Amino acid sequence: MKQYKVGLVGIGAVGTEMVKVLRQRKFPASEIRILATRERDEEVAGETFHVLETKAEAFDGLDIVLFAGTEGSKGASKMWGWEAVKRGAVVIDNGDDFRMDDRVPLVIPEINGDALEKHQGFIANPNCSTIITLMGIAPLHRANPLKHMTAVTFQSVSGTGRSAIDELDAQVREYAAGAYTPANSRLASEHKAYPHQIAFNVLPQIGSAKKEMPGFTTEEAKMTFESRKILGVPDLKIGCTCVRVPVFFAHSIAIHAQFTNPFTPDEVREIIKKSPGVKLVDDLASSQYPLPLDIQHGDDVGIGRIRIDPSVENGIALWCSGDNIRKGAAQNAVQIAEEMIQRGLI
Amino acid sequence: MKQYKVGLVGIGAVGTEMVKVLRQRKFPASEIRILATRERDEEVAGETFHVLETKAEAFDGLDIVLFAGTEGSKGASKMWGWEAVKRGAVVIDNGDDFRMDDRVPLVIPEINGDALEKHQGFIANPNCSTIITLMGIAPLHRANPLKHMTAVTFQSVSGTGRSAIDELDAQVREYAAGAYTPANSRLASEHKAYPHQIAFNVLPQIGSAKKEMPGFTTEEAKMTFESRKILGVPDLKIGCTCVRVPVFFAHSIAIHAQFTNPFTPDEVREIIKKSPGVKLVDDLASSQYPLPLDIQHGDDVGIGRIRIDPSVENGIALWCSGDNIRKGAAQNAVQIAEEMIQRGLI
Repeated sequence: MKQYKVGLVGIGAVGTEMVKVLRQRKFPASEIRILATRERDEEVAGETFHVLETKAEAFDGLDIVLFAGTEGSKGASKMWGWEAVKRGAVVIDNGDDFRMDDRVPLVIPEINGDALEKHQGFIANPNCSTIITLMGIAPLHRANPLKHMTAVTFQSVSGTGRSAIDELDAQVREYAAGAYTPANSRLASEHKAYPHQIAFNVLPQIGSAKKEMPGFTTEEAKMTFESRKILGVPDLKIGCTCVRVPVFFAHSIAIHAQFTNPFTPDEVREIIKKSPGVKLVDDLASSQYPLPLDIQHGDDVGIGRIRIDPSVENGIALWCSGDNIRKGAAQNAVQIAEEMIQRGLI
Repeated sequence: MKQYKVGLVGIGAVGTEMVKVLRQRKFPASEIRILATRERDEEVAGETFHVLETKAEAFDGLDIVLFAGTEGSKGASKMWGWEAVKRGAVVIDNGDDFRMDDRVPLVIPEINGDALEKHQGFIANPNCSTIITLMGIAPLHRANPLKHMTAVTFQSVSGTGRSAIDELDAQVREYAAGAYTPANSRLASEHKAYPHQIAFNVLPQIGSAKKEMPGFTTEEAKMTFESRKILGVPDLKIGCTCVRVPVFFAHSIAIHAQFTNPFTPDEVREIIKKSPGVKLVDDLASSQYPLPLDIQHGDDVGIGRIRIDPSVENGIALWCSGDNIRKGAAQNAVQIAEEMIQRGLI
């Protein structure tokens, strides 16, 4: 089997997970070359890597380059992405700088792997909450075209990166160590990862205010525009609110969708059962539905709470949970590379 | 000023808050008589009460009886509600047993105080998440009739009662005291208040499976049917998903609403500014929006994240947070009593 030289730029929460996912999936990598701000030896996911400084020549000889940028660590793919392509690599970028670029396919392999066929060397990995939402919606849309969707997200702090994971951890420890009670749970410490305390709170803001869309956050804009590009429906109607919750890993999304034709919950369940990358967890009477705590660290997106939404014609409501660091980021990026190999594109 | 003899049945989280609210609002109470399962002396909200056993004669002489039943402590108003009416009291019931009863007005004083005029001695206090949602929506509906609404809730554990508040508190203390990490946050202890661990998790189930509506929870059914009764629109179209989050106090709701006529965000803000019981907290650029941690223990429902929902005609999205124990329960019940006094109905 052919082996590939894989570059990885950035070793935050997503980069670390990419190393894990490459190893777990036995990706045919003859080399994993990690690039970051400065040269050093560093342990990543249990292996010691000689990390190189990110510069143009460092990309030489690589077949695939994964940019692990997240909200917190932007810019690397902007600086080095096309340079890596020029030097012969296929770039898969987890960041959001090129997702809406017409030259760049935006891909969830289970949904629109076809879009890879016309690639120009640079592929974008979609936003985490968009991936998890579409893993539930796309197979239904294929059977019965989607007309409208309202998506409200419950996003974990790992989407922000390590600093936010540490901050939630520190905040609950501060609560337990101090003179705090449920009625008095506002902590004395300063918060840095978010504009407000995240422990015992929910924050209806992910990203920043989107200038071109008054009142919207950047995350809400991503959900709207990326969904349209991935599903190939440029005028798809999507309303959404994106919210941060005090959960470490896995994003969940409450979806209320309207389809073109009638749909029964059982038909929806059958489609989910047959679709790759998703699993049905749906028995309300015995309190079975996807939960972030069950879904975290796993590969599949869980789908449950499937029911008629009687408020619209052909309405279906459902609930999806998926690990934002894995399927929402690292795993999907590696799956893109696998899909390209399988299609003979690398 | 006329003074009233006030009975209070049940002293869980809501009953305790009712005593607080009666005192804070200087309710004209010549007596607060607490009834519970057995006679004893007990400190409630800083005062020592001689609690009486709940039986028919215990209601004699009372002008107003507040039933503080919540999800956890049902049945008292079913057993004693109409008996108290027969003995001359006006009953205000926080529980859900009579909310959809045609004899019983279901009232949020700022919204449908008029419904009290035809009362038969028994008034119902709506569900907490319904109250908080409608505090934001009803003033808009009055200006521009609501056609459709999708509401997704982020509900705090205090809605379940003291056992759930204690359970979240105990779970985060267990996390801090043990060998837990963000990547390993599933606790060893058993959970009792909920079917799953609530710390570092979100649960898309509030109440139980509603038999008559496959796939729906009882909470989602309440949101639908109570909203229709309170707004007086029997066929109002509402889709909703109700979710428990690891927050101690205050429920938040992401609302996507469609109105009959166009609405600008500024028009919506002006209406909210002028409406009683709500406050506008809406400046995304400086990260100002209602948060459970800011709203808890307060009287008003906070409204923010007001923006166009471009996915539907005349769409507006907004975010509401309100203290579920206060405006969502105890405070609204006391306000009903105040409204009845003002209208000369007691």
